[in-house]
Formats: sequence, structure tokens, C-alpha cells
Amino acid sequence: MKVTIKDIIDKLMEPVGQLESTVDTLRSGSLNTEVKGIVTTFMATHHVIEQAVAMGANLLITHEGTFYSHLDRTESLEKDPVYREKQRLIDESGIAIFRFHDYWHRYQPDGIMAGLIQALDWQSYVDDHQPAASILTVPAMTVKEIAEYAKNKLGISFVRVAGDLSITCTRVGLLAGYRGGGALAIPLFENEHLDLIISGEGPEWETPEYVRDAVHQGRKMALIVLGHAESEVPGMKHLAERIGMMFPTIPVHFIPGKQIFQVI
Amino acid sequence: MKVTIKDIIDKLMEPVGQLESTVDTLRSGSLNTEVKGIVTTFMATHHVIEQAVAMGANLLITHEGTFYSHLDRTESLEKDPVYREKQRLIDESGIAIFRFHDYWHRYQPDGIMAGLIQALDWQSYVDDHQPAASILTVPAMTVKEIAEYAKNKLGISFVRVAGDLSITCTRVGLLAGYRGGGALAIPLFENEHLDLIISGEGPEWETPEYVRDAVHQGRKMALIVLGHAESEVPGMKHLAERIGMMFPTIPVHFIPGKQIFQVI
Repeated sequence: MKVTIKDIIDKLMEPVGQLESTVDTLRSGSLNTEVKGIVTTFMATHHVIEQAVAMGANLLITHEGTFYSHLDRTESLEKDPVYREKQRLIDESGIAIFRFHDYWHRYQPDGIMAGLIQALDWQSYVDDHQPAASILTVPAMTVKEIAEYAKNKLGISFVRVAGDLSITCTRVGLLAGYRGGGALAIPLFENEHLDLIISGEGPEWETPEYVRDAVHQGRKMALIVLGHAESEVPGMKHLAERIGMMFPTIPVHFIPGKQIFQVI
Repeated sequence: MKVTIKDIIDKLMEPVGQLESTVDTLRSGSLNTEVKGIVTTFMATHHVIEQAVAMGANLLITHEGTFYSHLDRTESLEKDPVYREKQRLIDESGIAIFRFHDYWHRYQPDGIMAGLIQALDWQSYVDDHQPAASILTVPAMTVKEIAEYAKNKLGISFVRVAGDLSITCTRVGLLAGYRGGGALAIPLFENEHLDLIISGEGPEWETPEYVRDAVHQGRKMALIVLGHAESEVPGMKHLAERIGMMFPTIPVHFIPGKQIFQVI
């Protein structure tokens, strides 16, 4: 039976219902094209698009915007050579690019968070899934040990840590993506009696500085910042697994992409 | 002659004129208090406030907000123990805390940028001071060499780098603080023929991903992310020097603070 891009999108959006405002749109391609193969990824980079095309996929599902901003507007890029070359690749390959961001975060639990917890192998330690965070009670480890554990499980080369590396943690708050800001993260320490927050990304003058003050005051507290992509990549792998189960006749691949930063 | 806090603030704001909207306010203390000593810093942390009080300063000039957000609102922190303990220290010490952010950035050249360029010893390489960036032509070095040079000059333990570490750079764009986002940084590569941008902080899915695509397309380009504080601390040292010259009878100190993150 022919499966179209519209069939895939409808199925993916179904558990959430219709969002009034969303960045989850079809950036290229047509809804009634038959799907030959699907690739999921955190970010539709130039390289990932080439890899997806080479794999025979004609639908690329990306979590973040293709052109370097959340709203993915390109007016200011019209004369930019990097934008133009990437847009030409998209046009010439005919690949459809669908953004799956808001809907995936609205799954219950959040699909990105579910993937992160699965990658960390912490499924059995979840106490509570809140809309923007999950609260866990993990076996006692120091912050340093958890940092090494997370690097190993997520396959990443570094994390950044604020606070006291030597404290033993059991109460952990997880915030994937750009949810590490103070308004979301700071109240969790007190309200959820957390030892540690593990976040994707957030303003450096907010939660890290709160943790710095808290530790100076003698409180036991730390923050591990994984990196935005590093915290959300597993959620897009998880999505590939889900789509594979829903559409078993369609080849579905996941492309992780490389870590964006090196530390020098 | 008695110098009041108002005298200091008036003198600091004078080169800019009156901004209609600003975060630069006196958070604690009174305008007509006589100034006994001044400390400048990037962030009025709990530790820095203690150090300033111990030095005999009664005016602390901070670049970022005291309570973990740009607008520095504290309604949601009223019951937070870290906030309460820090606020108690401020109240009991009687120290005045003045935020000097918007005005210092509006100096020509931007006072924060002037401090950063001075710390990098690149004063003679500036081609252009734009409102949000400075453009330099530096002696040819690889990205790796510039990263090591910047770490050494700024006294920081790591930087994050995206793009090609091996390319030789001469055209450099500098963006201090939270100006590393795509809207400000991306157009500079093309418009200013840059090899390298050095920024403080910015969203990870914007400029770094642009650089990743550009390098994959065969372009020679890189991004060094210093860290927000790491890019602005020298500007607050520079401020201490300026105030010391303007008010030679008042003791003026600069407290750098420690780097907020460790890399694991």
C-alpha cells in the first residue's frame, strides 16, 4: 500500500492533536509524494541531507530548523552562499524535509526526553515526567561519575559542569534541549530537592551562576550541561525506532551527526 | 571632596546620554552615600560581594544581574534559600550594587569590547568597530593557534571551537557576551570576508551549525566560543582602570571571579 508523506505526518501528529502555533512544517517536498525511505536526525545539515539522499530516503525528519534559527526564516540569507548551496542541494535532490519539534516535545512523555532517558538507561529511575523536565532518583554516584557515565552512554567527548563535582547525587532533574534556563531549572532544585540538574543548553548567566552561589553558601548542588544536540540526538533515534514500528514496510534510518564543538 | 554614588553613576553614564530603557539600575544602597571604595566585576556573586565588603568597598559595579537573569526580577525567588541568603548578605553589609551593562556597551567603542581587545593585545589590528562586533585583521595564525593564544591571554582553561581548526586566519570578527547568535554573527562572515568569529555565547543551533555546513561545503571558516563571562570579564577590568583615572582618590579594585564551568 502506498504511504505518502501526509500519512507519516498525520500519524506522527495524531497523539498530540492540532497545535495552534508550531514550527513543525514541511520545508520542502509535497504531502502526496510516496515515501521511499525516511531518515531522522537532530539537524538537517548539508552533510546529513547528502547522506539521506545517498541512502535512498526521500523524507528527512529534523528536530531543529534547517537554516540556523528556531523560526527557520531565510529572508536575511537570500544572498548567503552557504544557504544558497544548501538550498540547491535540497531542490536538486527533491528530498522532503519535515520539522518534528513541537509535537515530539508534546508527546507524553516528551519523545525527546524518552529517548534521552533510554540512552542513559535510566528508565526505571523516573519519579515524575513534568512538561519541561523529568525527575529521577538514580543510584548514588558523584557528579564526576555521572558526567563520565553520561559521556559514555551518549557517546560524547565532553560535558561542562558547574558546582561541586565531588558531591554524591541521587535526585536528578533532566531538561533536554534549550530548557536549561533559570526560569525552568532553578525552582526545581528547591521544589524537587535536587542534587543535580542535567540540561542541554541554557544562558550561562542564569542556572550556572545560581549553582555557583549555592555551592559557595555551602549547599550541595551541581549542573551538568550536555550540549543542545547532545541532549536531543537520542530522542531523534528513538523517533526512528517508533516510525519503524508504525510503518514496517518503509526503510527508516537515524543519522546522529557529529558533535558540533571541540574543546581546546 | 566627598564623592557620592550618584557622582560615580552620573560620570559613568555621561558619555552615552540618557537611555530610555535600561537594566542599569542601583539594586541596593542609596545615591547620596559617600563612596569609600569601588569594586568592578562581571557578576556580583555571593563570593564577590563578600570579597568586596572585606576590601572595604561600599560600591560594587556588576555587568550582569545579581539574581540569575537579565532583567534581574526576583518575584519567583522570594522563597528560594540561595536568593534569601544572598539578599541577607547584601542587606546586612549595606553594600551598594550598581549594574553597568547597557551604558558600558554603548560607549564608543563598546567598553566591554575595548577591554577584550586590550586583553588580547590586538588594539593595533582593529579595522572597524561596529555596534555589536569589531572587525580585525590579525597576523596569520591557525584557528588552533588563535584558540591557544586567546586562552593564554584571557587566562581561561578551555574554549569551544566549531569548524576547521587547521585553517589560517587573518580576518576575525569579535562579538563579546551574548552576541554569538546567527542574526548578528552569520552575516559577518560574508559581508566582512571573515575567516573566524570569536564570540562569548550564542544559541548552539545557529552560528555553529552555519559554520558546520560552510566547512562541509569546502569553505574555510571557524568559530571560537570563549564563554559569556570569559568574553566580558576583561571589559570590567578595563572599567576599573577607567574609574581609577576619573576618581584617583577612591580605591578601585577589579575582581575577576573564577571560570564558571569545568570541562569533563
